[in-house]
Formats: sequence, structure tokens, C-alpha cells
Amino acid sequence: MKIAIVHCGELLTLRGARRPRIGAELRDLAIVRDGVVVLEDERITYAGAADGIKIPGGADVIDARGRVVMPGFVDAHTHLVFGGDRVAEFEQRIGGATYETIAAAGGGILATVAATRAATEDDLLRSARGRLQWMIRGGTTSLEIKSGYGLSLDAELKILHVIRALRQESGLRVAATFLGAHTVPPELKGQPEAYLDHVIAEMLPVVGREHLAEYADVFCERGAFDPAQSRRYLSAAHEHGFKLRAHVDQLSRSGGAELAAELGCVTADHLEQSDAAGIAALRTANVQPVLLPGSVYALGKSKYADARAMIDAGLAVVLATDFNPGSSPVPSMPFVLSLAATQMRMTPAEAITAATFNAAHSLGWGAELGSLEASKRADVVIHDCHDHRELAYYVGVEPAAVVIAGGRIVHQRTDE
Amino acid sequence: MKIAIVHCGELLTLRGARRPRIGAELRDLAIVRDGVVVLEDERITYAGAADGIKIPGGADVIDARGRVVMPGFVDAHTHLVFGGDRVAEFEQRIGGATYETIAAAGGGILATVAATRAATEDDLLRSARGRLQWMIRGGTTSLEIKSGYGLSLDAELKILHVIRALRQESGLRVAATFLGAHTVPPELKGQPEAYLDHVIAEMLPVVGREHLAEYADVFCERGAFDPAQSRRYLSAAHEHGFKLRAHVDQLSRSGGAELAAELGCVTADHLEQSDAAGIAALRTANVQPVLLPGSVYALGKSKYADARAMIDAGLAVVLATDFNPGSSPVPSMPFVLSLAATQMRMTPAEAITAATFNAAHSLGWGAELGSLEASKRADVVIHDCHDHRELAYYVGVEPAAVVIAGGRIVHQRTDE
Repeated sequence: MKIAIVHCGELLTLRGARRPRIGAELRDLAIVRDGVVVLEDERITYAGAADGIKIPGGADVIDARGRVVMPGFVDAHTHLVFGGDRVAEFEQRIGGATYETIAAAGGGILATVAATRAATEDDLLRSARGRLQWMIRGGTTSLEIKSGYGLSLDAELKILHVIRALRQESGLRVAATFLGAHTVPPELKGQPEAYLDHVIAEMLPVVGREHLAEYADVFCERGAFDPAQSRRYLSAAHEHGFKLRAHVDQLSRSGGAELAAELGCVTADHLEQSDAAGIAALRTANVQPVLLPGSVYALGKSKYADARAMIDAGLAVVLATDFNPGSSPVPSMPFVLSLAATQMRMTPAEAITAATFNAAHSLGWGAELGSLEASKRADVVIHDCHDHRELAYYVGVEPAAVVIAGGRIVHQRTDE
Repeated sequence: MKIAIVHCGELLTLRGARRPRIGAELRDLAIVRDGVVVLEDERITYAGAADGIKIPGGADVIDARGRVVMPGFVDAHTHLVFGGDRVAEFEQRIGGATYETIAAAGGGILATVAATRAATEDDLLRSARGRLQWMIRGGTTSLEIKSGYGLSLDAELKILHVIRALRQESGLRVAATFLGAHTVPPELKGQPEAYLDHVIAEMLPVVGREHLAEYADVFCERGAFDPAQSRRYLSAAHEHGFKLRAHVDQLSRSGGAELAAELGCVTADHLEQSDAAGIAALRTANVQPVLLPGSVYALGKSKYADARAMIDAGLAVVLATDFNPGSSPVPSMPFVLSLAATQMRMTPAEAITAATFNAAHSLGWGAELGSLEASKRADVVIHDCHDHRELAYYVGVEPAAVVIAGGRIVHQRTDE
């Protein structure tokens, strides 16, 4: 299967984005005007100027005149697989309940745990498939998905099996993260240490042995796990061969950024409450910050992570949706770009780099995804706008006209 | 042409919303489960329970099982017709420039005035048509459009002709508002009084005589027109037979709400800076507040209008997009619902009422639009969600599956 995308209005190759971790150049999208992208089977064979490139015979030709062509978004932090929804709780929060008080009353994450435990693997697969379609409609072609709404061996395995099935059926690159330490399950209420004993003794070995997840993650937060507990869990996960990601400094500042640095986490996620010391620690340990403005927005808060300080410190910031039913019902990467631009003062170019190239590196996919270059995977999106800045500018529209993942068209807009 | 929409998962009739101005009941969407809507030509002939209604022969039947069926959104404040865009300025604002400093430097509204003056009527129609399509994709079936990027008789007439053409070709209900007093044009810089003399003597009579606009509007704000100037202009417009709307108390508090009340405006729009006295004045004079959270969001500000105080005061709050290229590149009414819920603590039911029933009344369309009842206009949207609260909950997706305006399907989602 050969596809040639020709006359690209703006072809964002991101070829200049050479230093993905420390000191990344976040401003250079290496834009080619009237460029061409050639895809052969799963790979890009050419991306650049039209001069001197011959379109291979038999290629399907797509005219992208006046349109933006770019790498698919890499959504590096999602909780896509769960049972039920939380619209009732959403209404309670409007009435004044906080995320924390709802959780303390058995709602919040635990409500989703109950619904997820009650769901069959088929139920979970079907609902996650619908949400994945929303993401693809926004231009996402690869993503990370966490478990963490099971909190028992069986229920966590059920979620991880669904993630595996989504990977297989969608053809998208999907990374799995084991988030057994998301919160303490109701049957061990008030006993986080006892629950972690169980996670470490019973869950980590099985998940690791069956290669169901590449990463382990923890929710280090008041009401979930404190830094000492998080350290114990992450250290055990490391011994079982997991690479580490961690939810830190979201609702309260607990030194989570420093903890992530100390343990050599690949990413530290959220960081809304992190200060200069935390940012310096991430810098020293080469940890990528994953910023999740969707949850700040959806919770009606106004303290976003200090993206400017992180960029100025030379960190290769990542942006992701944090899609989940409680704090971030946001499947759309373009909306995350909008939040980054309007609420966090990231330029559109910085935000796009954070949502593609930097995000790919945070998942170990830097050699394969995140830019348009020969030999990289054919994850390419044609957006129905003429200037890449429009992706962060217009809000609430789905800009993607054609979405290609692994050389296959997975979405095409054909409204009537 | 007959259409029967059957098995509606949630049919939001809004039949209970009886008092559109003072003391409106904002909470009752009058939801029917498994309901039926019958459309015959341009009208609704039935909307309610399935019991006892016979589907007319020859009707196209649409199964809306598991879906939300509701009136189309009525977007009561937009600036849809303009030349150019303002993405470059968007980037400047990220770099720290304010909306007001950009305007003072000849950017902002004046940049759009220059681009609009340079555009042909065809250019303007073509670009507005594309943006209208975005709105329709969000579930909007009727709207108000303002002029105001011309600021000369010819250029204002050009915009008003485009609005008329959009109304004719789209089949949507479109109200036109003359916003000659949007700002002072560059050729009369520093001379707002001289410009208003011209508007009052040369523009208002022509626009009124040719029936090109039903409403007149003013931007009462620092750098545009002060309250005394706004009063002079609106009073003249009233004498020429225009009904009045006014942009007040957006960036600074100038007593604009009180002015709108004094002059008997139909609506007072923005109101982010209005206080309790302003709200009381609106209440006394029966002026509907039109709240525009998209511009607060897109300008990166956090002070939204005090919707709760207005609702508690018994005002029939309206929500609209304020779609424009500078402060609100937001065509999506679902995103406005999201902002209302997450940032202004309006319940989804209040927000939906504000975006349909109350909005229709603010445009004099209360007898025809804004609820699903026999004899009303067949403006009906089928949303791809099972609970109306999802419209305000998920962000960045286009929920509308089928959009019907005046009995005609104007949008149908058929992705591949």
C-alpha cells in the first residue's frame, strides 16, 4: 500500500527536534511549504520538499493543498479503559463538592473501580473502543493506557487484556502501564501498606511475567499513597523490570517531583504544584514532565503546571490528555494544545512538539514516531486548516480530515 | 418531507421552561424517555411520549436509541463574518501582549477591519460559510450575526449583505445585528464622537431603511466607546427602529449593565465585571444577560461572569459563543456548555436551557424555537451520547450525529 500526500500546505516534519530529553528545541517544527510525504506500507519513505521526489507508481495520491500535515499525536497519559462514567459526580462538583470529598465518600476513583470490576472484558473493550475513536478523530495515532480501576489481580489483568486487545485490533501503537497503586481498594480501606504488600507480592510478578505492561505508575497524593509508600512500590516495580512513570504533585505538593527524580522515573506526570526545586530535580535526573492541563480545566481549577519554567529549565515537556472519567473527560489533543496556549503560555509550536516528538520519546518511541522522516512509522494526520497555529486557536472542533496510522487510513472525515 | 425520530434515549423537550425572561425555570428540561419527535416540512407536529402517537405514513424514520435528542442550539452572539484571521496575534498574546495593547498598536479589531475592508463579498461569504459549518457540526441551528468589522457605510453594508446571503443559502434562522459602533476606525483615530456622528447620520438610516439588521449593538469599553457615547448611539438606533443589544462590562466595569437597563436593551452581553448593582438593574429592567465564557477562556483570563448570582436573581441567562477571530475563536456550543459547567458552576440543565430556550427568547424567537413542541420550527439535533450531561462533560469532541434545521437535514456524521 503506497500513499503520496502532495502539495501539503504546511508540512510539519519536526526534523529539527533533535534533543528529545534535556535541552530539547521546542520551537522548530521544520515546516516545509508545498511538501510531499510518501508512505509505503507501514513506513514513511520520504517527507520533505516536492523538488526532486518522484511519486512512486501505484500510489494513492492525496492532495493536501491548503492543509496542515503533521505526525499523529502521541497521547502519553491516558486512563482509557474503565466501566461506567461519572456524569452524576460531575454535576455534584458543580454543586460544590470537591474531587477529594467525593473520593472520601466512596465516589470518584472507587465508583469507577466498582463499575470496572462489574464489567466484562467485552464491555470494557466496547466502551474503550468508542473513546479511542474520539481520540483518533482528534488526530491521535498512538497512546499510552494505564490500568488502575481494578485494584485486584483479576480486575487489573482484565483491564490489561483489554489494552492488549485494543492494540491488536486498532493497529495503533499502544503502550500499557500498570497502575495497581492508583488508590486503596474499598476492601482494604485505610490500609495502604497492606494493599501495597498485595500489589507487590501478587500483582507485579504476574503482570511482569506475562509482559502485560511495560511501565508501572503510582498516584502519589493525599488519600492515595504518600511518598514513602510510593517509593516502596516503584522500587519493587523497578526490580520486576518495569520502567517507571508517576502521578505527582497534582492536588498537593508532596515532593513528588523529587521522588520521581530520585527513582529515575521516565516521566513525572501532573506537577501542577511543583516548585523550582522540583523542576531542578527533574532536570538533573533527566525526567520528562508530562503535563495534563485537561484535568486542571475539568476540575474548574486555575493552577496549571508551570510549563514556561520547565521549558526554560531545558526540560522536554510532554502534553497529554489524562483522559479519564473523573478529572479529565478530555479525549482531544487539539483541546490540550488550546489549553497549553491559552492557559500555560506555550506557543503552538512548543505545544505541538510536546504532543508529538517529546511524547514519543517519553514512551521509548523516539526512533519510530513523533516526526515525519524516512524510515519512521507512517503515522500522519492531515488537518483541515491552513496554519498549524489554528490547531491551538479554534476550540471545540475536530480538525482532522484524514488520520493514517501505520500506513493505514483509520479515519476520514466525510460529513454530508 | 416527513421525519419521525423514534426511541429517543433522552428527548429534551424543554416544555417546562415557560418563563423565558424574569424568573425562568432553568432546571427543567422536561425529559421524555424513549420519546418520539415527528417533523412535517418545516414544523414539529409532535414531540413527546411514544404512547398513542401514530407515525405518519411516508415518514423517514430515524432510530435515536441511546441518544440525546434536543432543540438545536441558538447562538445569540456571534461575529461570524470577517476577513483574515488573527493567529499571529494569538501567538503574540502567548508571548505576553494583552488584548488591549495589541488593539492600541493597530492590531486586534482594526487588523480584522483592514482585512474585511479588503475582502470581496464573495470572499467573506466563502469564509463565513466554512465557519458556519463548524457551528452546525456542534449542533447550532440558528444564530445571531453582527456586523462591525467594516466601520464605513460600504464595508458595513457588505457584511450585512453577506449575513443576508448566509440566511438565504443556509436555511437557518439568522438574525442580523448592526455593530457600527464596534470601535473607532483608523481614519478617525481618537475621534469617537466624530465617528458616531457619521454612524448616526449616514449608517443607521440606510441600514434601517433597507431592513438589513433588526438589532443595533455597541462595544462599550475602554478604547472603544464610553457610556455617554454608547448612550447617544443606542438612543439614535432606537429612534431608527432598531432593538438594542450591548457589549458591556467585559474588560472593565463602566456601569454598562445599568446603561443597558436604562435604555431598555433586549440583552446586555459579556458582564464579566458586573457587580450586584448591575445585576439588580438588569433584573428590574428585564434585560437578558448573554454570557460569553469563550472569550474569557481564549484570552487566558479567569474572571467569568457571575452566572450563579444572575440565576439566583431570577434572570434568564443566555450562553453564546461570541465567535470572533480575536477574543473567542470558539464556534462550538458544546464547548460553551463545558465552560459554563466547569468554570461558572451552571448545571448542564441550566446551561442547555440558556443555550436554547432562553437564547431563542433573547432574539424574539421564543414562540418558534428553543423547545420541542408541536407547531414550533423543526430545528432538532440528535447527539451521539446517552445522557444530556455528557454534552458539557466531554471536551473537544463534536457530539452531533444528525442536525436538522427547518425540517431539513443540514449535517449528518458519516465518518469512515
